Amino acid sequence: MDQGQSQIAVMGVTGYAGAELARLLLGHPRLAGTPPLFLGREGSARESLTAIHPQLTGLSKDQLCIEPFSWELLAARWVKVLFLATPHEQSRKWAPEALSRGLRVIDLSGAWRLEDPANRAVYKFSDEGSATAAKTQAASVYGMPELHRDTIAKARLVANPGCYATTVILALKPLVAAGWVDVKRGIICDAKSGVSGAGKEPTAKTHFMYAADNLSAYGLFGHRHTGELLEQLDVAADAITFTPHLLPIPRGILATIYVTFLERHTAGEVEACLRAFYAESPMVRIHAAGQLPQIQHVVRTNFCDLGFQLAPDGRRCIVISCLDNLLKGAAGQAVQNLNVMSGWDETEGLL
Amino acid sequence: MDQGQSQIAVMGVTGYAGAELARLLLGHPRLAGTPPLFLGREGSARESLTAIHPQLTGLSKDQLCIEPFSWELLAARWVKVLFLATPHEQSRKWAPEALSRGLRVIDLSGAWRLEDPANRAVYKFSDEGSATAAKTQAASVYGMPELHRDTIAKARLVANPGCYATTVILALKPLVAAGWVDVKRGIICDAKSGVSGAGKEPTAKTHFMYAADNLSAYGLFGHRHTGELLEQLDVAADAITFTPHLLPIPRGILATIYVTFLERHTAGEVEACLRAFYAESPMVRIHAAGQLPQIQHVVRTNFCDLGFQLAPDGRRCIVISCLDNLLKGAAGQAVQNLNVMSGWDETEGLL
Amino acid sequence: MDQGQSQIAVMGVTGYAGAELARLLLGHPRLAGTPPLFLGREGSARESLTAIHPQLTGLSKDQLCIEPFSWELLAARWVKVLFLATPHEQSRKWAPEALSRGLRVIDLSGAWRLEDPANRAVYKFSDEGSATAAKTQAASVYGMPELHRDTIAKARLVANPGCYATTVILALKPLVAAGWVDVKRGIICDAKSGVSGAGKEPTAKTHFMYAADNLSAYGLFGHRHTGELLEQLDVAADAITFTPHLLPIPRGILATIYVTFLERHTAGEVEACLRAFYAESPMVRIHAAGQLPQIQHVVRTNFCDLGFQLAPDGRRCIVISCLDNLLKGAAGQAVQNLNVMSGWDETEGLL
Amino acid sequence: MDQGQSQIAVMGVTGYAGAELARLLLGHPRLAGTPPLFLGREGSARESLTAIHPQLTGLSKDQLCIEPFSWELLAARWVKVLFLATPHEQSRKWAPEALSRGLRVIDLSGAWRLEDPANRAVYKFSDEGSATAAKTQAASVYGMPELHRDTIAKARLVANPGCYATTVILALKPLVAAGWVDVKRGIICDAKSGVSGAGKEPTAKTHFMYAADNLSAYGLFGHRHTGELLEQLDVAADAITFTPHLLPIPRGILATIYVTFLERHTAGEVEACLRAFYAESPMVRIHAAGQLPQIQHVVRTNFCDLGFQLAPDGRRCIVISCLDNLLKGAAGQAVQNLNVMSGWDETEGLL
Repeated sequence: MDQGQSQIAVMGVTGYAGAELARLLLGHPRLAGTPPLFLGREGSARESLTAIHPQLTGLSKDQLCIEPFSWELLAARWVKVLFLATPHEQSRKWAPEALSRGLRVIDLSGAWRLEDPANRAVYKFSDEGSATAAKTQAASVYGMPELHRDTIAKARLVANPGCYATTVILALKPLVAAGWVDVKRGIICDAKSGVSGAGKEPTAKTHFMYAADNLSAYGLFGHRHTGELLEQLDVAADAITFTPHLLPIPRGILATIYVTFLERHTAGEVEACLRAFYAESPMVRIHAAGQLPQIQHVVRTNFCDLGFQLAPDGRRCIVISCLDNLLKGAAGQAVQNLNVMSGWDETEGLL
Repeated sequence: MDQGQSQIAVMGVTGYAGAELARLLLGHPRLAGTPPLFLGREGSARESLTAIHPQLTGLSKDQLCIEPFSWELLAARWVKVLFLATPHEQSRKWAPEALSRGLRVIDLSGAWRLEDPANRAVYKFSDEGSATAAKTQAASVYGMPELHRDTIAKARLVANPGCYATTVILALKPLVAAGWVDVKRGIICDAKSGVSGAGKEPTAKTHFMYAADNLSAYGLFGHRHTGELLEQLDVAADAITFTPHLLPIPRGILATIYVTFLERHTAGEVEACLRAFYAESPMVRIHAAGQLPQIQHVVRTNFCDLGFQLAPDGRRCIVISCLDNLLKGAAGQAVQNLNVMSGWDETEGLL
Repeated sequence: MDQGQSQIAVMGVTGYAGAELARLLLGHPRLAGTPPLFLGREGSARESLTAIHPQLTGLSKDQLCIEPFSWELLAARWVKVLFLATPHEQSRKWAPEALSRGLRVIDLSGAWRLEDPANRAVYKFSDEGSATAAKTQAASVYGMPELHRDTIAKARLVANPGCYATTVILALKPLVAAGWVDVKRGIICDAKSGVSGAGKEPTAKTHFMYAADNLSAYGLFGHRHTGELLEQLDVAADAITFTPHLLPIPRGILATIYVTFLERHTAGEVEACLRAFYAESPMVRIHAAGQLPQIQHVVRTNFCDLGFQLAPDGRRCIVISCLDNLLKGAAGQAVQNLNVMSGWDETEGLL
Repeated sequence: MDQGQSQIAVMGVTGYAGAELARLLLGHPRLAGTPPLFLGREGSARESLTAIHPQLTGLSKDQLCIEPFSWELLAARWVKVLFLATPHEQSRKWAPEALSRGLRVIDLSGAWRLEDPANRAVYKFSDEGSATAAKTQAASVYGMPELHRDTIAKARLVANPGCYATTVILALKPLVAAGWVDVKRGIICDAKSGVSGAGKEPTAKTHFMYAADNLSAYGLFGHRHTGELLEQLDVAADAITFTPHLLPIPRGILATIYVTFLERHTAGEVEACLRAFYAESPMVRIHAAGQLPQIQHVVRTNFCDLGFQLAPDGRRCIVISCLDNLLKGAAGQAVQNLNVMSGWDETEGLL
């Protein structure tokens, strides 16, 4: 992709991930001088982006607006890559159409992440079973560069992973892929997320009085990110118990993951396994054994931090993984995917 | 009021102040064995109180329910005192009817706090100007025991003060009443409140992501509690500038109040003035000069803490006042009024 | 114990648990009129209690002071029950002496909770192995009324449980005692606590900038409360993996506990098992299946709330347990023990 | 300054402002490839910067270290600009020496901000009155580009302003300079700051349990930033009452500033006055009348947001000013000064 001719569009910019995506793209060195095209609903009125997100004021010399969507506008602006930060059903509708018009798509929703219809069932997509959906899903690549860098580079549709899924998969993949984990014994993923993960809609659960000074678990044995874990780690449905909690903080996820190894390992071996797996992945930071990552060190960054502690028995291992749910868990990873798709350095605009 | 025969009813118990009121009444030593009658809308279904407020579970041996309102039910249960923790317009409707049926009313809304129609205008009451409203207003006593203990004792309708108003009036009344304050120079009240003051309705401003890690001012030159300040302090409309802010905490108000004295005073004189005024008021705690109150020490109590600092010039004085907006600023003061109306110790059930 | 003759003393009242203990005892209906004797170090100066804890101001008509400790003072005031809210080593020293003088002791430290020297090793007690220590330990009863009500009633030394230990033991005891839990498969206890659990000492980890907007795990495979779990649940050392986390909230603990049952059970059976076990325990509240407890509903109460969710396989069960670490996890449970020891209603002064 | 030959050094990088300064300089486009030289105490051991600030890990391809300070090292690395993020007394010592060696200095401490010895008295500098100190002070320029851009460009010593002072001065300067403010009537500045302003040292007041869920005022009639207000606004000592408060948030300052105008003005005039004053200042964002700035929109940015509300009388005006105390209030403004001193775009590395 050549910066001079290319143009980026973002559909759906009013939410938290959309705001972060806008911020990242406005500051991206490869897009300097060509701010992205921000799009709202078809037929909607032109709106000021900074009226919705005052924190973006002053970041661009251009006046930032949200234009009503039309395919003609995308064509007129030479848009080549379309980000969808839209609800699942919207992405199910827009992505196939965009592909048919020759655009490349990075979708931040859950629309195209899951191959197995059983795992998709939780979303109840209205077009489930249609030929278009099947064809689109087949074209989709799971957008985690650390696992699928090469296919992302060529992909026409990238399904940006869920925030919880990113946190857990990055922690477990090296150990599971090495064949060390006693999967039959069960893996426990106890995850905790800040409130931005619950979305911008004011609800009883996003009320300050509910979330502040509180901690609550939800979605036990049924969170919809679980399917991503199963597919990317290639394990059976009952092998993973995933429990999310709502933390009284704006952003950040920390997952405490309990695995049992089939054989004894040393802390040095575990650290080496993680380091080897991510040797070429600049957005994953490995901590030395016993040095545990914390949310405060990843918030407002695109890093995923991994650390672990091994029991004296050398068999039980706790892996701690954390990241910023709006960045590595959403908009940051989406830009990382853009970088990979464009042949740019994977970290551009993200450090 | 005799405990054996009397019965308390609470109308409107689903909000934050309602929950605190229920908790206080359930633990009130004078009401032991006779839990209050909790009421919901006329014609509504009977509901479990602890389903709405799980934190109240286990506080009573009785099953706690919200009964659909009817005047017949109040009569059947021998209700003598009715708390209204209802929206303003509801209180405008219920209070006159309750009075006509011989009940005593403690109203937590803004319906009956203001004598001057100009100050009431901000509420846009639908019955403004009616004879019933005028008569009811004339019967109403402003429910701040520290100022109106004797009239409250005999009152049939007590208008429980606003939370901000309580914070500011308790701080200023002794100094203004002493004639020390240069009112013409203007009094600045910079107040900060926790989010519970904004109510239980999920809105953009009560969303955790809006309130947390933030501070914002609102209602400049126009907050509806201002009228209470003017009437209770007996000063002209432009004498007080009152500015509320939304604090990222669940509960508590702190007001920083700037006055100029007509003449020089010493810190000792200021402290003596405050102590004398509240000598008989156990719910106001006076701090020594330079010892400033903080929200953490009043939260979950019915106390209002007052402190101050005098400038070296002996003329500029900053008074700090703080309280829990749901207790001394709402439900706690309401129970304090019940105590005064019932001839009980003013602090019963509140320490 | 007869209120008229008895007298309560509290040693160590400057910390968070000490402040809560003082507050509870000052408001205890059985102690009305006889405020407890607050004690500081031997030879220290008399201090004002409300200068240290301003929130206690106004709770007693007496001036509240901390007196320098001496055995003579305890005798002169007819003290019968001594609370120790002191560091572990202090409690190792004071408890035997107090017992020898005929006092009954409720110790909030970790000094006398553990029978097995292997479990005690983590504390590195300086008197480990002495005859006095052995004799004192033998006299000690683990102060969890839900498990040991009868022995506590007669105990001379009650070892008040750790906050994390209380949270986990109350959750697991009914299921483990029923023989349902596949202990060999391992039990995971992922616990999260507010900052007050870390004590009043200002450290890098209790700094607001460290704790706020953050989450961190600590003490992996080595927290000193683990021994209490092992002894009270009577399981092998590697059967339980206990991981504490530091939550960005002042108080409250929530533990997410993962067990596997030896055989399939229904949600109804699990709920019935919990309810039966705590039928006579008013301070444990059982939630219906799928209704999960939250920290906000137990903070500032002495309740432990228990809920659970069963996987569709009827084998994997997640139990959620939460309580206020300063109350049911410390001072509240200590007062509950006082009630049991005194033959009073277990909930007196705690609702 | 030419990037190829120049080199930046930072002395004192362990605090919060130092960490932000390191982060900004590492990402500064003009310094790409030449990471700054980080310095610790003379004779100290070489340390890893990312061990102290884990969040900086991965931001540079070089290993980031803190080198023991020596003038020889600065010379050997061709250092031309030295940032001092050191305590006041250290800056009093280093700055004159650095100047004498031909370096340009940007000092983040309070050492060189104040011209009037009376205003400096609060710092009790040990070298007060010395010839060196007098000469150094005379060379110092107050580092607020919006007021002193031209002199900063040529300055050898830039005294980076205090965080509170920046917030208040930027709000008031346009109105005071226009001669609109009735200074004799007094200006009230009620300011609220996040906890990072209190520094990294763990103290009773920075303990999470003190700061969280709390608000407290401090430094009444005596905060040391007051002198900066007086000098930069050129008003008499009693003209300004400045009151800081400690907010339960990590970062951000909001000041609510009350002024009275000598004559009536319209909101349009006030807005025009502010806009005209900052027409060439990209780091100040002016809000339309009645649109009030909030901390959430400036945190993690180098912007100062200004808004206001005018009373119906056209005389009383409330100005709201907010910024991030670690960026525009410290490290960000320091980098802005570096940009101005270097002839670069004022916003480079700051958007």
